[in-house]
Amino acid sequence: MIADDVQMGKDVCIHHPEWVNLYGCRIGDACKIGSFVEIQKGAVVGDRCKVSSHSFICEGVTIEADVFIGHGVMFINDRYPKASVNGKLQTEADWRVIETRVCRGASIGSNATILCGVVVGEDAVIGAGAVVTRDVPAKAVVAGAAARVIATEK
Amino acid sequence: MIADDVQMGKDVCIHHPEWVNLYGCRIGDACKIGSFVEIQKGAVVGDRCKVSSHSFICEGVTIEADVFIGHGVMFINDRYPKASVNGKLQTEADWRVIETRVCRGASIGSNATILCGVVVGEDAVIGAGAVVTRDVPAKAVVAGAAARVIATEK
Amino acid sequence: MIADDVQMGKDVCIHHPEWVNLYGCRIGDACKIGSFVEIQKGAVVGDRCKVSSHSFICEGVTIEADVFIGHGVMFINDRYPKASVNGKLQTEADWRVIETRVCRGASIGSNATILCGVVVGEDAVIGAGAVVTRDVPAKAVVAGAAARVIATEK
Repeated sequence: MIADDVQMGKDVCIHHPEWVNLYGCRIGDACKIGSFVEIQKGAVVGDRCKVSSHSFICEGVTIEADVFIGHGVMFINDRYPKASVNGKLQTEADWRVIETRVCRGASIGSNATILCGVVVGEDAVIGAGAVVTRDVPAKAVVAGAAARVIATEK
Repeated sequence: MIADDVQMGKDVCIHHPEWVNLYGCRIGDACKIGSFVEIQKGAVVGDRCKVSSHSFICEGVTIEADVFIGHGVMFINDRYPKASVNGKLQTEADWRVIETRVCRGASIGSNATILCGVVVGEDAVIGAGAVVTRDVPAKAVVAGAAARVIATEK
Repeated sequence: MIADDVQMGKDVCIHHPEWVNLYGCRIGDACKIGSFVEIQKGAVVGDRCKVSSHSFICEGVTIEADVFIGHGVMFINDRYPKASVNGKLQTEADWRVIETRVCRGASIGSNATILCGVVVGEDAVIGAGAVVTRDVPAKAVVAGAAARVIATEK
């Protein structure tokens, strides 16, 4: 389902709109979005991005142009999530969104987890299954949990 | 889809019932359940829990009240799963469910994997992407694969 | 949805065909496929396999008979994925699929990530949450990220 409040760019390819959950977000031109993807309100996806199946992009995440998001990638916007506060389910009033930015040309491997408050630099590569807990320099290749730099792209 | 045999509490919020697969489970009051979630028969979710998108809760899992389950969290109930036995697909008769309990107030980060037979203590915090292979003490903060205690909540 | 071009074996069990995305693939006899699963064109799944919920099997992956695929398992067919090339979204012409094989009787734990170009040997066991970056010997039990041999099945 694509909610009415989604700002959708031109030529976006979503093969199965019935299996995505997009609401209140902005999607750039010429993006491709896979099945079973959720993108929350306030999230921004730049032009020519690929968001692969089973991924979740939350409020507070800005993805610049030409970024690849693999399958099963999870973003986070809350460092200490709790279900309830004082015996009531948390509401939006109970937390502050911590922002994350993925810069132009970066690639994030499948099943990676991106903690909040980080910047993934331009053309950086996040290995599949990595858990990113801090900023990733431009062109760095990181892997592992917590992710560490293992190489630098030329 | 919410099967007829689900014991559903009061004031449960499921924005997209067409994208959840709940059957034979018990869901407490005032819970919130995200999209693309599966909860199997026999699983129990307490009051005021949040189960975020893309998570899977299997038979044998008991989640007490006020627990946060992040996105893409997977529970397990079989230590040595096999597809087939003696040339036939396994059936329920071929395995014994190993139980897991998540105690009141715990939070489980996104993309975490919880092996079977463990107890996650009260108010414990499981870091995003962690692989929990043994019991987690109350109020402990664990991270990594296999998950280790990195701090204790006050 | 099961596309018309899927070569489906006999007695395949898919409880919720409306929540799977299968196209151009071959599925063997007596398989069981869970919800929110995507299997791409060119992928091959042998007889008596279980593919659990939330998993993704891409082009270039061959799964032999009697293999268990847990929940949230992601396969990969591209070592250096990029969203775009020279200002245009990548198309299939821009990459070469790197093949992966999972041999008969293997079991892959939930939330595991299988990098491309690897062979998972017969009856091998991949621990939950593991990131498999190289070949796994037959009957080996591997775990961790990157996955290492921790035991050998008798």
